[in-house]
Amino acid sequence: MFSGLSAFPLTPMNERGLDEGAFVRLIERLVTASVDSIGVLGSTGNYAYLTKTERARVLKLAVEHAGNIPVIAGIAALRTRDVLTLAENAEAAGVSGVLMAPMSYQKLLPEEVFGLYETVTRALSLPLCVYDNPGTTQFVFSDELHARIAHLPHVASIKIPAVSGDPVEARLRIERLRAHIPAHITIGISGDGSAAHGLNAGCDAWYSVIGGVFPSTALEITRAAQAGNTQEALRLSQRLQPLWELFAEYGGSLRVIASAAELRGLVEQPCLPLPLNALSGEGRSRLKILIDELNLS
Amino acid sequence: MFSGLSAFPLTPMNERGLDEGAFVRLIERLVTASVDSIGVLGSTGNYAYLTKTERARVLKLAVEHAGNIPVIAGIAALRTRDVLTLAENAEAAGVSGVLMAPMSYQKLLPEEVFGLYETVTRALSLPLCVYDNPGTTQFVFSDELHARIAHLPHVASIKIPAVSGDPVEARLRIERLRAHIPAHITIGISGDGSAAHGLNAGCDAWYSVIGGVFPSTALEITRAAQAGNTQEALRLSQRLQPLWELFAEYGGSLRVIASAAELRGLVEQPCLPLPLNALSGEGRSRLKILIDELNLS
Repeated sequence: MFSGLSAFPLTPMNERGLDEGAFVRLIERLVTASVDSIGVLGSTGNYAYLTKTERARVLKLAVEHAGNIPVIAGIAALRTRDVLTLAENAEAAGVSGVLMAPMSYQKLLPEEVFGLYETVTRALSLPLCVYDNPGTTQFVFSDELHARIAHLPHVASIKIPAVSGDPVEARLRIERLRAHIPAHITIGISGDGSAAHGLNAGCDAWYSVIGGVFPSTALEITRAAQAGNTQEALRLSQRLQPLWELFAEYGGSLRVIASAAELRGLVEQPCLPLPLNALSGEGRSRLKILIDELNLS
Repeated sequence: MFSGLSAFPLTPMNERGLDEGAFVRLIERLVTASVDSIGVLGSTGNYAYLTKTERARVLKLAVEHAGNIPVIAGIAALRTRDVLTLAENAEAAGVSGVLMAPMSYQKLLPEEVFGLYETVTRALSLPLCVYDNPGTTQFVFSDELHARIAHLPHVASIKIPAVSGDPVEARLRIERLRAHIPAHITIGISGDGSAAHGLNAGCDAWYSVIGGVFPSTALEITRAAQAGNTQEALRLSQRLQPLWELFAEYGGSLRVIASAAELRGLVEQPCLPLPLNALSGEGRSRLKILIDELNLS
């Protein structure tokens, strides 16, 4: 489950609530494309902006419509007590695995992060992916902390941030982390613009934002890298360079991918929770042209 | 209300819920000391870790026990829809003003922050303090954005992060901000170790963490600065240097002040929500000695 292309769909919503119809259509699109797993309620799924009731509803819909494809559920929250409830709810919904970032308001200390994973994995019966995302959590994992957490029961994967575009540096990064963790733990790359580099450097999985909306485009890169066609994977990724540049310009992938889903008519506009805004004006026009030129699908 | 010493008490809690008795005792302590205002559900009040129901309860207790001292309520949340509900709840509880940071999971863009303040102030009938806290929100205000927001209705104060320890630089910082905003907007300093510098440089208020647990100690510094005794304010602050160093060592003021309240018997242990931990071991021992040596009160 924690290998290959793990596609992270948006959770379309507006100020009145979830857009369940659009969410189900996104899930069905991923099933049709045959992604390797579906990661719901990740950062792209806007887990942090939803109530527990809304999150439980999203998981129910995802499991109902995902067919045989394993569903991974984000269970992070600011408080340990809430994470424990969300873990129970995820198990009750019938997901196959869970994903958790050390979400913070007060930046967490390493011992607090370890304590959080220790408490949660003790209560868990599903495999867990450690979500290392300093951009949203403000927490930077050391490899030593990754090692301690990776030895806890149920830990099965680590979702790491972008690696270097230099193949030697990227491979060294992955090898250094692998030397710290048990052999059964998979490593997945995130930061879409870094995915080909990460997969080529030996990552087992791509935890993918564009895969949630354009699964065929993301699968093409993934399958090339898995087949050892490193140059082809790089070429396919470099073709998308203007998209990676838009991500950087608009504070990350979320606003751009949400706008792309709107422009493609996959979700209604707006689909993000305020105060977050999708692209408008010139950025949106550029994206509209890009989607067609790059033939994203 | 947005001038002088604004004391920010902890909201003591554990995994079972709020410790209402301890919270009321903290409020009463601030009333006895005659602070100028009480800021509940700030970062120190752990607003981000509480449900809406718990937050409403905290406001009710604060207003009931604050006597004639104005209560300022933190109303921030990740979603605009939740901030609007929290603003309504704060007004219903009878607070005198509100405080809002641009809390984020996805780091916000300047237009999103402006949109948030515009929407919230439109719905508000109480004065609002803009809470500029890049340490927890990951958002850095420009003076131009401060200016746009300060011109919105109901905006009455700006809570700024630490200023330079160099008096000329600190004064330049305050004067630069003041040149951007209407004359009726007060400026308040936060970052306790920077309070004397900020007040001496012309800040109108100190939004104070130690003031929430040790109001007399914080009032002494505030009153010296307000009387123009800049050297005395600095001396009193420098005396607390070992405490400011502990703050830096433990990722900010919260864990240290919570531990101090526990050590003084003002709250039960633990008083922070997991995954947050108060100090243990050697750090706690050092703090215990410090509280006595510095005669904090």
